[in-house]
Amino acid sequence: MLVDGKQMRPIWLDRDTRVVKVIDQRRLPHELIVEDLYTVDDVIRAIKDMYVRGAPLIGVTGAFGVYVAARNAPQDRQKDDYLTSECDRLKAARPTAVNLFWGVDRVYNKIRNIENPAERIDAARTEAEDIAELEAENCRRIGENGVSIIEDISRKKGGGTVNVLTHCNAGWLACIEYGTATAPIYEAFEKDIDLHVWVDETRPLNQGSRLTAWELGKHGVKHTVITDNAGGHLMQHGMVDLVIVGTDRTTYTGDVANKIGTYLKALAARDNGIPFYVALPSSTFDWDLRDGIAEIPIEERDPDEVRYVDGLEGGAVKRVLVPPADSPAANYAFDVTPARLVNGFITERGVCEASEEAILKLFPEKSKQV
Amino acid sequence: MLVDGKQMRPIWLDRDTRVVKVIDQRRLPHELIVEDLYTVDDVIRAIKDMYVRGAPLIGVTGAFGVYVAARNAPQDRQKDDYLTSECDRLKAARPTAVNLFWGVDRVYNKIRNIENPAERIDAARTEAEDIAELEAENCRRIGENGVSIIEDISRKKGGGTVNVLTHCNAGWLACIEYGTATAPIYEAFEKDIDLHVWVDETRPLNQGSRLTAWELGKHGVKHTVITDNAGGHLMQHGMVDLVIVGTDRTTYTGDVANKIGTYLKALAARDNGIPFYVALPSSTFDWDLRDGIAEIPIEERDPDEVRYVDGLEGGAVKRVLVPPADSPAANYAFDVTPARLVNGFITERGVCEASEEAILKLFPEKSKQV
Repeated sequence: MLVDGKQMRPIWLDRDTRVVKVIDQRRLPHELIVEDLYTVDDVIRAIKDMYVRGAPLIGVTGAFGVYVAARNAPQDRQKDDYLTSECDRLKAARPTAVNLFWGVDRVYNKIRNIENPAERIDAARTEAEDIAELEAENCRRIGENGVSIIEDISRKKGGGTVNVLTHCNAGWLACIEYGTATAPIYEAFEKDIDLHVWVDETRPLNQGSRLTAWELGKHGVKHTVITDNAGGHLMQHGMVDLVIVGTDRTTYTGDVANKIGTYLKALAARDNGIPFYVALPSSTFDWDLRDGIAEIPIEERDPDEVRYVDGLEGGAVKRVLVPPADSPAANYAFDVTPARLVNGFITERGVCEASEEAILKLFPEKSKQV
Repeated sequence: MLVDGKQMRPIWLDRDTRVVKVIDQRRLPHELIVEDLYTVDDVIRAIKDMYVRGAPLIGVTGAFGVYVAARNAPQDRQKDDYLTSECDRLKAARPTAVNLFWGVDRVYNKIRNIENPAERIDAARTEAEDIAELEAENCRRIGENGVSIIEDISRKKGGGTVNVLTHCNAGWLACIEYGTATAPIYEAFEKDIDLHVWVDETRPLNQGSRLTAWELGKHGVKHTVITDNAGGHLMQHGMVDLVIVGTDRTTYTGDVANKIGTYLKALAARDNGIPFYVALPSSTFDWDLRDGIAEIPIEERDPDEVRYVDGLEGGAVKRVLVPPADSPAANYAFDVTPARLVNGFITERGVCEASEEAILKLFPEKSKQV
């Protein structure tokens, strides 16, 4: 997508050096810093410390992580042992991200039986790049499939502004291109539909106010940053027509793990009769999990992410402490929105209701697995 | 209440100079600054810019504002004209705060027919001080009346920790002593009930993480700061036993205007079968309003309160910008929780259900008014 007139992705391979490069998203929107990932430890740090975040991008980063592992594999160790343990380490970097396991396993399975090191490295690189292209294409299709929901509302409002609320960043920064939740928004924007996005700031890491607002602003999409507390009031007063969010992991029964606070917006949408959609590539479905609230492990992150806030002061990014220095904090990173509160899923294959039956009808090849 | 071993209130009259003094709550928890209010403009600024906040304290500050107006009344102007216009200005400082109108009118009505300036000033001072004492006493009774709810849960849990979630600051800083939402908590603490408070940080102004955490910490009450997004997840997982919040204005039908985001917590509490209580002195009931969502005007405040965050950095309080400099923001300060989501009201007179019938049964003298 465009950043100051230049085409950009959140992860790419340097054409000459073949070094993996990522935008350090912790520094946005005030600084655009690119980091080189030379080692598996670099890749793990980029995932764990959230240089990269968002389910699809984490999956692609994991895939490139296997390429990095293949490149760095020592001559004197059994490749299988080394690769297996490096892949295990990569998969442990973020516990909630099913895409991470998927991305890592897909590259690993592709190269595990290749003996020649150079061929193995080449195959890992090609597979990781294929996964990146696949994610970009999936997001393009999510946009195509989801835009009709926005078009319908626009028609019903006689061309009046369609107000979409989104939580966190499920934009191109979280994916490769277009984003998931933002894909129908960008597609509607391209089609000249009058729309405006309410951007939940998304505490504690403010991915909404820092990243989604930055993306939408760079692209020229009308938007307004609000606190995570504000959505319910807006919905009560007819100021939201549609909610679209992304997801980090969704059960085949339709329970949605996403950034903490998503569940509260889903409750408010339901209470006010506002459609609540989840946009996702099908790789985000977990075909093994039935009960999202009981079965999806919720990552508890460093409480300092709650206690400190990063922002610009005097031309530099500074970190300020908000609560009393001796007050403890807790930092649950995700919550689970039960399927009963979700109106539908927007996937690369089409839109479906949030039920096991509808999901398996759209992905019949998974019926045997569940 | 105690602050570092010293008894303190958020507003008081200096014994010698009779100057009104307030804690500048914008500077907490990192700095404890006391401001002198010499003029009605000082009082309005203290209310408008939120040196003082919270319904009961705003009411008391308005009452002291009339005392300041009486003290500063010019000799050469008709006292009635001057006082009336100064009271109107005071009442316009915060549109949602019914206590402000109540506090101002009560002192104004007491002194309007007193001709002698010295007597008028004395009467205004006495009345304002009486209102402050009344609020303190109301909060003490709210604590007495509400503690049984916590005691019941403690008994059901066999003495296990009772987890209370609260939003914003309805503590002694918002009142005079004890607080409203915190009064049953402090009372339970005095009774040695094992309890722990989840403190919503309460964006945008972080009154939870800045003020409630500070109050509870100073008093020794176990607490944990969480993002406003986290409550739903905690409730889904049995980590919240009870929600208690305050209110800025409540209709006689039971609709509750409170800090933005309260409605979302009420939805989550209902969805998880967790009791949701609102603690208030009866002065916060608005006996003229029937439909809270339609009729209570919601203050829209400066968007920069959303865009900037105050916190401690390098030993000084700094203000950092979070979203991109060119992204707009909106700042709705309150929302309305409909009566159907409220389990009950904890008042100085007792506990009642959130219905017109139950409220008027507890306050039968108001039946004629509504």
